[in-house]
Amino acid sequence: MPRELIRTDPDFDRQFEALLNQKRDEAHSVRDVVDGILSDVARRGDAAVLEYTARFDRLDISAGDLRIDAAEIAQARAKCDRETLDALALAAKRIKAFHAHQKPQDHSYIDDAGVRLGVRWSAIDAAGLYVPGGMASYPSSVLMNALPAKVAGVERLVMVVPTPDGVINPLVLAAADLAGVDELYRIGGAQAVAALAYGTESLAPVDKIVGPGNAYVAEAKRQVFGRVGIDTIAGPSEILVVADGDNDPAWIAADLLSQAEHDAVAQSILITDDAAFASAVADEIEQQLMSLDRRDIASASWRDYGAMIVLDDLMQAPALVDRLAPEHLELAVADPDVLFARIRHAGAVFLGRYTPEAVGDYVAGPNHVLPTSRAARFSSGLSVLDFMKRTTFIGCDGDSLTRIGPAAVRLARAEGLGAHAQSVSIRLDRGAGGEDSRKQDHQ
Amino acid sequence: MPRELIRTDPDFDRQFEALLNQKRDEAHSVRDVVDGILSDVARRGDAAVLEYTARFDRLDISAGDLRIDAAEIAQARAKCDRETLDALALAAKRIKAFHAHQKPQDHSYIDDAGVRLGVRWSAIDAAGLYVPGGMASYPSSVLMNALPAKVAGVERLVMVVPTPDGVINPLVLAAADLAGVDELYRIGGAQAVAALAYGTESLAPVDKIVGPGNAYVAEAKRQVFGRVGIDTIAGPSEILVVADGDNDPAWIAADLLSQAEHDAVAQSILITDDAAFASAVADEIEQQLMSLDRRDIASASWRDYGAMIVLDDLMQAPALVDRLAPEHLELAVADPDVLFARIRHAGAVFLGRYTPEAVGDYVAGPNHVLPTSRAARFSSGLSVLDFMKRTTFIGCDGDSLTRIGPAAVRLARAEGLGAHAQSVSIRLDRGAGGEDSRKQDHQ
Repeated sequence: MPRELIRTDPDFDRQFEALLNQKRDEAHSVRDVVDGILSDVARRGDAAVLEYTARFDRLDISAGDLRIDAAEIAQARAKCDRETLDALALAAKRIKAFHAHQKPQDHSYIDDAGVRLGVRWSAIDAAGLYVPGGMASYPSSVLMNALPAKVAGVERLVMVVPTPDGVINPLVLAAADLAGVDELYRIGGAQAVAALAYGTESLAPVDKIVGPGNAYVAEAKRQVFGRVGIDTIAGPSEILVVADGDNDPAWIAADLLSQAEHDAVAQSILITDDAAFASAVADEIEQQLMSLDRRDIASASWRDYGAMIVLDDLMQAPALVDRLAPEHLELAVADPDVLFARIRHAGAVFLGRYTPEAVGDYVAGPNHVLPTSRAARFSSGLSVLDFMKRTTFIGCDGDSLTRIGPAAVRLARAEGLGAHAQSVSIRLDRGAGGEDSRKQDHQ
Repeated sequence: MPRELIRTDPDFDRQFEALLNQKRDEAHSVRDVVDGILSDVARRGDAAVLEYTARFDRLDISAGDLRIDAAEIAQARAKCDRETLDALALAAKRIKAFHAHQKPQDHSYIDDAGVRLGVRWSAIDAAGLYVPGGMASYPSSVLMNALPAKVAGVERLVMVVPTPDGVINPLVLAAADLAGVDELYRIGGAQAVAALAYGTESLAPVDKIVGPGNAYVAEAKRQVFGRVGIDTIAGPSEILVVADGDNDPAWIAADLLSQAEHDAVAQSILITDDAAFASAVADEIEQQLMSLDRRDIASASWRDYGAMIVLDDLMQAPALVDRLAPEHLELAVADPDVLFARIRHAGAVFLGRYTPEAVGDYVAGPNHVLPTSRAARFSSGLSVLDFMKRTTFIGCDGDSLTRIGPAAVRLARAEGLGAHAQSVSIRLDRGAGGEDSRKQDHQ
């Protein structure tokens, strides 16, 4: 049984604090291992990648086989059943449509000092997408990571996916094809991250790396950060369901289990104002676990990290939600907007009784790559903005420089930066009102 | 003399490649030192912070003195001269005005399947701003880091600044005051980053840490990334000036020196189509260096990292600019927009002959915290978005779930996630068309 916290217990605050501080990441000492792999790939390129692939994925290939070609992708597609491909296509269409709204607008204006100011957005040239192999190789994740890059306008989208013992999920290749991935390589682990960051003979380097992976992949991304961009480092998944007693306990039990089945360190938390409902959900979970394929994982997660929090009033929930800053938040109440308006920190919110979190995992449209481990306090789910960057621009003419330049000179001198001051003052001495300058800057 | 690259040299490509790959970050082995400081502060709080402050800043204080109070700030303001304070106020006003344009819009809509979808932006609760002490303690940086946070709506903005031997730049305190910083502490180094990330008895933890610092600060930010958000890790500063022969060599020389004077590892590069102009600029630089206060720094930077690239035609410049992806790009030509339209990667662009980069450092309005070391390929300057995060939301009713749910069930089953499938299908069995669901989701 998972822990149960009752608001009216005198010990409630301490217990809630313990829940907040519970560690779910196992402590790995992977730093040095990853460091070694990264520098080896940076130095020896393909040769190193091939050696690690042989060692970790038990896959003995030559450099010519690193890339997965069009014929192999077509073959994989042919192996997938029609209805699943149709479902994948619907998901892709809806994800694209939602993300298209995220494309930022350029803007520019001339302010009252006569200075032309603005921002211009552009796509990253090349992005790398890490897709885990084996059990966690999900076609839906390929769509969720690849489509925002394509909507952003990334011209070269490279995907790496390890194929332990040569095995790959054909749906993953079908999803890559559907999403418009430009290059695919059968490599994984820290060596794949290194290849993406440094490049090898077979794989030109990319500018940013996204996608989930195990502890080695996460550490590799952390270490190459700076040389390339990375997305947020993902921790184990989590769901927080806020539900009143009018819900069907079986529905809420299924929602909690849908997170628990991901991973033995996933976390499912129920907040309710009805203790009897909480027990009914707990009973339902035991029932549903019996017929679940992934019952070993789900029951370990529920037992070790699950929690049920019983409040006197659901209006107490927002404060606790904000402290947990959950990746996924379901508001299974009659009027979810009342609670939603009071909540600041959550990756994605699922409103009302007919919006199970799983619908967002696949087909709703918003991204399912979301901040975990309380990172929703400071970060957002994956979006088109993650594959674009902003260039600001400034254009002065002689007149406008005369208006704002003296303050710059003053501040530069106060900071002891003489050349800064000089680069402005040298133009003030000669530039004010020049016709030539107007022409060049404001045409 | 800096290196000179002539496009028509047979060796040009190799020399340009060497310029790209030149290392300017010194290799420090700070990782383990920082690791030790972070865990010590996490464990011992204030006591550890005070010990490191005594050791590194030669400042022996007690916990009660960590915070810089309002009286001390008022005292500092009184020490600053009126004109500099006015210049700072003008800068603050213009920075606020530019950043106000960056506030993102929430949006939501109901799509043709009847699904309610949207995004809601909110500010980070608490942000920490690192301000370097000593020589690199710049009031302009305080404004540039603090104001976007305040425009975003960050309620608790904490600033840390080391005061080696107890010395602090009064203008830094005045700038903090002007920008609306809520709490100030006289600490720095990895110990200050640790205090911001983990909290101590005197300093409640923040959610995100921004601001420049030395190698120890950068490594500390890298290590706490995940627990808190961080901005991009800043490398040494750089400028790329694209200038035709119609410029005054003295103006361009001053611009190149304004970057070189920052730091001996700063980089100033000139691209021109006029070899005689390049020599004239080089001569001017030698001239101006003689009267520059920071001539030792600037001449080391120019000698070791400066470069002049001579092309046959300035239309060859955009391709090279994109490979360098400079932090600052000046387009000192008659019609800068023609070049600007062909450039994809740059942090900030300064258009025309009357826009020296230094005007952007202080008063133009756009942020001067910009991606260095080619990071403009994948990242942007600091903005209001860095202090906000996005929550997506999804609302289905029985009808819309009936439309999109079956595809989710199909994909969940294909991924072997039975509870995911179950959480949708259990609602499909009973939910379709329910009036109650419409009421709760679409009101």
